[in-house]
Amino acid sequence: MNPVLGEFLGTAVLVVLGDGVVAGVLLTKSKAKDAGWVAVTAGWAVAVLAGVLTARAVGAEGYVNPVGPFVAALTGSLSVASAVQFAAAEVAGAFVGAVIVWLHYLPHWAATPDPGVKLAVFATGPAVRLPAANLLSEAIATFVLVLVGSAIGRVFVGHADAAAPLGAALVWGIGLSLGGTTGYAINPARDLGPRLAHALLPIPGKGPSDWGYAWVPVVGPLLGGGIGAMVAKAVFAPS
Amino acid sequence: MNPVLGEFLGTAVLVVLGDGVVAGVLLTKSKAKDAGWVAVTAGWAVAVLAGVLTARAVGAEGYVNPVGPFVAALTGSLSVASAVQFAAAEVAGAFVGAVIVWLHYLPHWAATPDPGVKLAVFATGPAVRLPAANLLSEAIATFVLVLVGSAIGRVFVGHADAAAPLGAALVWGIGLSLGGTTGYAINPARDLGPRLAHALLPIPGKGPSDWGYAWVPVVGPLLGGGIGAMVAKAVFAPS
Amino acid sequence: MNPVLGEFLGTAVLVVLGDGVVAGVLLTKSKAKDAGWVAVTAGWAVAVLAGVLTARAVGAEGYVNPVGPFVAALTGSLSVASAVQFAAAEVAGAFVGAVIVWLHYLPHWAATPDPGVKLAVFATGPAVRLPAANLLSEAIATFVLVLVGSAIGRVFVGHADAAAPLGAALVWGIGLSLGGTTGYAINPARDLGPRLAHALLPIPGKGPSDWGYAWVPVVGPLLGGGIGAMVAKAVFAPS
Amino acid sequence: MNPVLGEFLGTAVLVVLGDGVVAGVLLTKSKAKDAGWVAVTAGWAVAVLAGVLTARAVGAEGYVNPVGPFVAALTGSLSVASAVQFAAAEVAGAFVGAVIVWLHYLPHWAATPDPGVKLAVFATGPAVRLPAANLLSEAIATFVLVLVGSAIGRVFVGHADAAAPLGAALVWGIGLSLGGTTGYAINPARDLGPRLAHALLPIPGKGPSDWGYAWVPVVGPLLGGGIGAMVAKAVFAPS
Repeated sequence: MNPVLGEFLGTAVLVVLGDGVVAGVLLTKSKAKDAGWVAVTAGWAVAVLAGVLTARAVGAEGYVNPVGPFVAALTGSLSVASAVQFAAAEVAGAFVGAVIVWLHYLPHWAATPDPGVKLAVFATGPAVRLPAANLLSEAIATFVLVLVGSAIGRVFVGHADAAAPLGAALVWGIGLSLGGTTGYAINPARDLGPRLAHALLPIPGKGPSDWGYAWVPVVGPLLGGGIGAMVAKAVFAPS
Repeated sequence: MNPVLGEFLGTAVLVVLGDGVVAGVLLTKSKAKDAGWVAVTAGWAVAVLAGVLTARAVGAEGYVNPVGPFVAALTGSLSVASAVQFAAAEVAGAFVGAVIVWLHYLPHWAATPDPGVKLAVFATGPAVRLPAANLLSEAIATFVLVLVGSAIGRVFVGHADAAAPLGAALVWGIGLSLGGTTGYAINPARDLGPRLAHALLPIPGKGPSDWGYAWVPVVGPLLGGGIGAMVAKAVFAPS
Repeated sequence: MNPVLGEFLGTAVLVVLGDGVVAGVLLTKSKAKDAGWVAVTAGWAVAVLAGVLTARAVGAEGYVNPVGPFVAALTGSLSVASAVQFAAAEVAGAFVGAVIVWLHYLPHWAATPDPGVKLAVFATGPAVRLPAANLLSEAIATFVLVLVGSAIGRVFVGHADAAAPLGAALVWGIGLSLGGTTGYAINPARDLGPRLAHALLPIPGKGPSDWGYAWVPVVGPLLGGGIGAMVAKAVFAPS
Repeated sequence: MNPVLGEFLGTAVLVVLGDGVVAGVLLTKSKAKDAGWVAVTAGWAVAVLAGVLTARAVGAEGYVNPVGPFVAALTGSLSVASAVQFAAAEVAGAFVGAVIVWLHYLPHWAATPDPGVKLAVFATGPAVRLPAANLLSEAIATFVLVLVGSAIGRVFVGHADAAAPLGAALVWGIGLSLGGTTGYAINPARDLGPRLAHALLPIPGKGPSDWGYAWVPVVGPLLGGGIGAMVAKAVFAPS
């Protein structure tokens, strides 16, 4: 059992399927081209499910999201050193996942003219660029993720078989309902790792990696997730 | 354990995800724009699931809908005073949820020209305005919700892990099959709270809140839900 | 416990949600207009789930389809008299369900110009009218329903909580994969009862009820379902 | 109990529903025409679920994919002779399934003008023809299938009721996220059997069966699946 390896591998799987569905729906000549928002959000929901279960099979908690260890460190159930290790493993896994998506769709990058579309496969971006509003959006969506995710854990404590698909349904719902503003990173690793891959990989006709926005999908999720965890702790009945 | 707080928080989550998906699909510049009826109805289905489980984690029954306490009071399993408290908490939660949706989509209100679209994020409205027919529609849809919801509870008594996703599937089906006429409030709080938010919030370019229609999504669900509960009691085998 | 009443009520629920989704997607001015084949097939999947569970809550087996009692009579586990009673109750329930759909979408009938669209809400019709091919299509689709449905029952014997959603998934899949040719009645009651309602109800601007085709969605499902049940009995391991 | 018969029948069911959804979405005059990528991938997900459960009801493992016995032989848990028998039964079942799809959509072949569309119902083909990249795509998608499929099996060992729908969700996700490049055979039998049926059946106006590409959906899945199984064995905690 190696929880750091588990977070790494789980987050890689998360991004292979997550960035993969964006590539499929956006890149020119893809058979999934223009499959729409239902496809994107369902793909990300399965991505989270697959990532979490892969991490758990390795023996990890299966956060696949730095918000998880951050909240655990905040509430004292995890050391800061472990939290940093997990978060680093998750960013590294997300980077590797993005490289695999690049390989998987290899002939489609040159076929796609718009550099903005190519960046969108890797990193999130705002529908309307207004940093304060975008930060609030990421915080609200991650607040819902952590609050309702905690509720699922509380109600179905000891029933991972029921909790896992309900968690995936929650991620689908957050994407459908709250994803329209910023593309719902709700996970610093999911944005940071692939943005780094976009910057480093030899993608034909790529544009800048929009590092000016990169702090929003890091700070927003940590902020909203932290508040969500505190509210959950304050109001949920002990399990 | 605080059931009133639970109904408040659960209904807030219900409306964040429920009104959220309508905002995502309708508001200009949203990445979910024009995602269609499958997206809207799936988003509302997850919204109900998330709301119910959040309320239960706080220790409530998880009605997140005044039809629940109304029916419980009608059948004598809840005092009228408690039913009124729960209903008030649900309307207040729905109001707060709508305020959060307004904040989440903050830059999109000014970008959206049509006042009718902005109202549609908050409150339901009829496809064809004919009060008697609209009332019948809301009553039929809520009758199905209560009758089949009771059947799920009866068949899977003691299996909340099976019943919760089946309930969400039922809400999805009601939206797909019966939502086309009035937008399926099937819940007085879901319509009343957000309509009040629409009336009070400083939404740029908003129109009237259509209070003339507001009684339909209150009376219709109570009527249909009450009949549904009585039919369920009459014909279902004792659990 | 009244199994005949259960089959009646369950099939009524089946058709309210089943014909309801077709009405929502096809009728003019419906908010679900043009929601597409994914919506139609998902709506029918939830319709079957809701119908089966409603029938079971009353104390019935929950066939909501004359193919069920027909197969049970064929294999000797049900008397012919009971099978006929159940089938009659299912047709009557489907008729009542169709009347409720007519009421639910009351203002939309006059708004919809095409009589063929109005008939399509109630009864199935072939994409290409070729009776032998249409019969084969209905038989194949129902063969898959009974064969795989029996497999689910065999693998998850005693786990109704797992079997019920898997059955709904199967119905969704049959609609997606095999529904394109005849609109997949796969159930004589689902077609016959609503077709009768179409013939009798005062629907503005309706056309003929196409009784010449009505035998196909009766004979095809009984034929394919019967063969499916015999194959299942021959090859499945005893449970 | 006859595992060879089970793999045959299960793979036939897999292809009836799998090739069936492609036929429904692509063939002229089908009611499911242009239902899109969400429909195609959801149809294939249910197809895998239905195929696996049918095979299990007969008493087989329910691989319905030669990658399964190949990996089992590789890791020494199955004899090479049995693996070859299973793979042959799966290809034969896929052939029969494709013949049934041809019969089911009988009036639609002559109505569909494009020979490429007709081939696409039976066999996969690349979005951009570049054998090395296409091979890599099939290997990556099958790697994810085997790795995450093994994770599901590991986490939910002994809970087939939880594992079966999660496996279907995984297949849906792989289709949505990784299917855009080659149409995700991820199964040699699924491509080979139906391609043979396309070559042999009297389909009006059909073109060549593109045998030059046929090695890619055989070699890619075996390669990626084999690596996926080895990684799973190396990193997953013992169950």
